[in-house]
Amino acid sequence: MISYVRSKCPLVHSITNYVTVNDVANAILAIGASPIMSDEIKDVEDIVSISNALNINIGTLNERTVESMVKAGRKANELGIPVILDPVGAGASSFRNETVDRLLKEVKFTVIRSNLSEMCYIDSGLKGTKGVDSNLDENDISPEVVAKRVSEALGVVSAITGKVDVVAYKGKVAKIRSGVSEMKRITGTGCMLSGIIASFVASIDDPFLATANALASMGAAGCLAYERVKELGTGSLRVAIIDELSKMSDDTIKERGEIEIC
Amino acid sequence: MISYVRSKCPLVHSITNYVTVNDVANAILAIGASPIMSDEIKDVEDIVSISNALNINIGTLNERTVESMVKAGRKANELGIPVILDPVGAGASSFRNETVDRLLKEVKFTVIRSNLSEMCYIDSGLKGTKGVDSNLDENDISPEVVAKRVSEALGVVSAITGKVDVVAYKGKVAKIRSGVSEMKRITGTGCMLSGIIASFVASIDDPFLATANALASMGAAGCLAYERVKELGTGSLRVAIIDELSKMSDDTIKERGEIEIC
Amino acid sequence: MISYVRSKCPLVHSITNYVTVNDVANAILAIGASPIMSDEIKDVEDIVSISNALNINIGTLNERTVESMVKAGRKANELGIPVILDPVGAGASSFRNETVDRLLKEVKFTVIRSNLSEMCYIDSGLKGTKGVDSNLDENDISPEVVAKRVSEALGVVSAITGKVDVVAYKGKVAKIRSGVSEMKRITGTGCMLSGIIASFVASIDDPFLATANALASMGAAGCLAYERVKELGTGSLRVAIIDELSKMSDDTIKERGEIEIC
Repeated sequence: MISYVRSKCPLVHSITNYVTVNDVANAILAIGASPIMSDEIKDVEDIVSISNALNINIGTLNERTVESMVKAGRKANELGIPVILDPVGAGASSFRNETVDRLLKEVKFTVIRSNLSEMCYIDSGLKGTKGVDSNLDENDISPEVVAKRVSEALGVVSAITGKVDVVAYKGKVAKIRSGVSEMKRITGTGCMLSGIIASFVASIDDPFLATANALASMGAAGCLAYERVKELGTGSLRVAIIDELSKMSDDTIKERGEIEIC
Repeated sequence: MISYVRSKCPLVHSITNYVTVNDVANAILAIGASPIMSDEIKDVEDIVSISNALNINIGTLNERTVESMVKAGRKANELGIPVILDPVGAGASSFRNETVDRLLKEVKFTVIRSNLSEMCYIDSGLKGTKGVDSNLDENDISPEVVAKRVSEALGVVSAITGKVDVVAYKGKVAKIRSGVSEMKRITGTGCMLSGIIASFVASIDDPFLATANALASMGAAGCLAYERVKELGTGSLRVAIIDELSKMSDDTIKERGEIEIC
Repeated sequence: MISYVRSKCPLVHSITNYVTVNDVANAILAIGASPIMSDEIKDVEDIVSISNALNINIGTLNERTVESMVKAGRKANELGIPVILDPVGAGASSFRNETVDRLLKEVKFTVIRSNLSEMCYIDSGLKGTKGVDSNLDENDISPEVVAKRVSEALGVVSAITGKVDVVAYKGKVAKIRSGVSEMKRITGTGCMLSGIIASFVASIDDPFLATANALASMGAAGCLAYERVKELGTGSLRVAIIDELSKMSDDTIKERGEIEIC
């Protein structure tokens, strides 16, 4: 599937946080797509109009950029361009919650990708996000059940990343078991993944398969990177993940991505 | 002491500049704490409320974020959460000076960490910062004297980094001689250090020892990184510093940190 | 020529995008200059006043920062400090076009550096930028002709980067053939280059030779980096480019920079 991304080279417009934006751009480039970032309200409609996907990430949202997210999202909907939501920190603050609620009301998303805690906020208003990491016990709540419920309620592909990643859409579920827990020791793997999903969804007709393959690419890249540099430390791990994404092939996804479709 | 950070895994809220924010997040993760970034005035009180420390860095301040810094700082004070100030470029512009003056008036800080020039601005209104680097001759001005004076006047732990780092608090002084001058050839070592101090102070009761150990961790990481990659260049040095932070242990701090407490 | 940069160590004020700002700062440091970033309208005049060059990059412009760009540019003109423009995405949106038009009207630039598509917007109002990458066929339009026309019309050094880089000024043309196409697979090489040009122009009297040597430094760094890490991937390539810049010498520029002056 990554071969479709590499041959189409879609332009992916990201309105994303300034913490990991460079990694998002480099991850999008690494898999063969082309990144563009713009969060100015006077600019976003023009940029969306030349793009093949829109990736909205609320990690460092502010009042100005939230308006740009809404405007860009509506324009993307009007043009039939897929829109991805990464609701970073949903559940952690009122402003993040209100923003997620507003985005879900005003924009039709193709994919929502988050950790379990953030998806639980979307699912049921459950509070309890600790920062941007999930602090819910995955033993207590089934990611599969939550992903399915959100997918059905909103008509989106719902992807929850964690020990095992789960993707749900129209009765189908994919589980991705690649990836290593050390990926949590660097910032931005989730944000990069959302940019990668946007690139895949812009290149492949089936958003469920596109999302599952995007997750498997990231998981495989994480495994390969960790095998190569684990003795060095987390700075090298970050660099190596981009390295492995830049060499990722459909064969590697098949061998190392560990996708199971149920 | 880093073992306390790794076992507590404190959540550190940073309002910091967009130049080095990714390195700050990765440094905080590397030493075992958890980063969260938010600078929206409607968001910061909620985020501070779930955090264990607040790290304020004025590197790319603007009118909007200064209000968020003040609001977050006051909330942290109200909740008894330690607050760290990195007054980047104090002395270099009126707006930076006014912001530092206002922050010092409205927020009670636990630690102030800066270079000598910036601390001199706080100490005495001495002007003369060149950019974000110290251009004062450390032979003319004693960092120890300045650090002590600021510490006593404001009741804070005062940490000045330079050839030898100095930490002053309640009559005690620590000198840290680890670190290498090549660390100045990459951006962000100071900003990372302030994030690391916030993580230590959130995990250890004594803010003086916490700060001294944070500086020793960074110094030891710089030394080890430089020994490993000095032939390669400064891009690799940046990556290697994060690597070494991710492997840092109390034994390494003891062996390589070169802390002297007077 | 890089020896001039290393001995003068100019302070370079950048108002640049948040996607690649860290790479810009590290590239400026690597070649021996000193970076400072500030985009707050109340701050920029003071910061320009202590700087040796101003680097304006509109990659993630917004209404607030555009005002700061204009104010900083006018102050730099008043003080006789060189100003560099990187018109990222010119041609891709009305707001970017209006901003470029306004900057060109209100600020006198020393150097404009862009890809062919962006320079074509400046040249003739040709539309057609695809994101931030050139999608014009260099076979159809001669970068040399465009660079010369912009240089003559605006009295600036005009530098267009592409397969072969072209620099035009006062009837002279330089072509730089170093660099590798893989540099396009990482974000920020253009932005870093603009920061490097600012550093060279701040250190060397002749802005044409300064710009040509800046381009040759970046090209040589790209070649050397690619030779060293091509098996690893694009994450390592990004790190290695900064490495090679930090070791760059006039001898290496002569041997590997491939400058031809016509």
